[in-house]
Amino acid sequence: MLIYTHKVHYYETDKMGITHHSNYIRWMEEARIAHLREIGLSFKSIEEMGYISPVVSLSVKYLSPTTFDDEILIETRLSKYSGVTLEVAYIMKNAADDTIVAKAKSKHCFIKDNQICSLERDGAEMDKILKMVLDK
Amino acid sequence: MLIYTHKVHYYETDKMGITHHSNYIRWMEEARIAHLREIGLSFKSIEEMGYISPVVSLSVKYLSPTTFDDEILIETRLSKYSGVTLEVAYIMKNAADDTIVAKAKSKHCFIKDNQICSLERDGAEMDKILKMVLDK
Amino acid sequence: MLIYTHKVHYYETDKMGITHHSNYIRWMEEARIAHLREIGLSFKSIEEMGYISPVVSLSVKYLSPTTFDDEILIETRLSKYSGVTLEVAYIMKNAADDTIVAKAKSKHCFIKDNQICSLERDGAEMDKILKMVLDK
Amino acid sequence: MLIYTHKVHYYETDKMGITHHSNYIRWMEEARIAHLREIGLSFKSIEEMGYISPVVSLSVKYLSPTTFDDEILIETRLSKYSGVTLEVAYIMKNAADDTIVAKAKSKHCFIKDNQICSLERDGAEMDKILKMVLDK
Repeated sequence: MLIYTHKVHYYETDKMGITHHSNYIRWMEEARIAHLREIGLSFKSIEEMGYISPVVSLSVKYLSPTTFDDEILIETRLSKYSGVTLEVAYIMKNAADDTIVAKAKSKHCFIKDNQICSLERDGAEMDKILKMVLDK
Repeated sequence: MLIYTHKVHYYETDKMGITHHSNYIRWMEEARIAHLREIGLSFKSIEEMGYISPVVSLSVKYLSPTTFDDEILIETRLSKYSGVTLEVAYIMKNAADDTIVAKAKSKHCFIKDNQICSLERDGAEMDKILKMVLDK
Repeated sequence: MLIYTHKVHYYETDKMGITHHSNYIRWMEEARIAHLREIGLSFKSIEEMGYISPVVSLSVKYLSPTTFDDEILIETRLSKYSGVTLEVAYIMKNAADDTIVAKAKSKHCFIKDNQICSLERDGAEMDKILKMVLDK
Repeated sequence: MLIYTHKVHYYETDKMGITHHSNYIRWMEEARIAHLREIGLSFKSIEEMGYISPVVSLSVKYLSPTTFDDEILIETRLSKYSGVTLEVAYIMKNAADDTIVAKAKSKHCFIKDNQICSLERDGAEMDKILKMVLDK
């Protein structure tokens, strides 16, 4: 588990006065990329190995609104790895009072030469790291 | 069912060369707002009645990438209405070849005076419209 | 001169209740790309010829706020072309009452093989079109 | 002068592989808000005093592209204050090599009760702080 902090920007609010819900999807990306870097899988290194890693699916439950200047703590957990797809789980809290503001999941695959790739078969280096981390 | 068209903007792409996945969430909002207007529930009229309608949850399955200049046809369907929450289902197709590029759902509540509101009890006008539409 | 229409999306507003100023920059891009397509220089064709066309500079004067659901008419004019850089001028009006809501300019260059390129020297086809249009 | 750091997010890039130019406008807001907070004028306190502070105009010169993961150092300087409008100047550098990547300016007014306001006349507290800071 890793914790990533995002402070809500003014331009992330909408006319309801709260954070627009689409921004949480972007924070998930920020947190996920930080987490992967931490375990030795920076996006730059992933792309240098010839992979891109698009999002296959995602879901979000919005539990409590946030707004400008709120500090959001995003706990990320690599929750599942099949050799082909990676799942990440997120719990987002308002740092002010530890309220859970959102829970989310996202699923990712790895593409090389325009084809979905089994890391288990073709990406030994990444496969090894992900298996090691998931075992914990 | 209604169909809303969104043409992918250059600024909606990312360095993978495809549409960034967060934008589909915004297109869902565009399509949903257009659909609600069509049935007599424009966001302006909803807000003038004193309601705001935040997103409670959402999920997206990304089935095929899209990119700059693609014309996306978004079919929206008001799929469920409980008197308190409204669910909307989306099927997004690439107009060029009718490929389904994404499927999604979102769930919404209605808030008045800072409280979640039962339209069934307190919002007769909106409740009537939503029930009529869902019955079809 | 061409007119491009953009309807302000809910997600383009901020907690002041008005359109966030950063979005006008994106509408300029939408309008510019539509204008270039109209004269035979679609972004796709530009990129297929091996060029990218980054923004060199821009300026915006915000004259009157806009908000959700406002229909913005964006007049674009290719105002200057040096053989190397292209300037575009924008006048944005609220369709409801023809108020001018913003005036803007942007300047663009053309890059091929990582180098700024003189279209006059190396891009005859695009050069010809731009000169013809600017002469009018 | 204050320095604010922004790390370029993946979702801020476009299909040219570089940061989309509209994001610099958002970073300017981030840096400006951080600077104003530092001198005792947090946006929250400004809004609690009943003011909003929209952007009147802005200009940007893009000098060198940036991309995902680049660390951008944004120097902000409150460059002019008329009693009614405030001007801010920005110099943005790539932290990796201190290249200047963009220079920008923005101008802001203060609105209370839907009217542009002279802080000199009606906003003594803010006026005092801004004059003190600008004198330096």
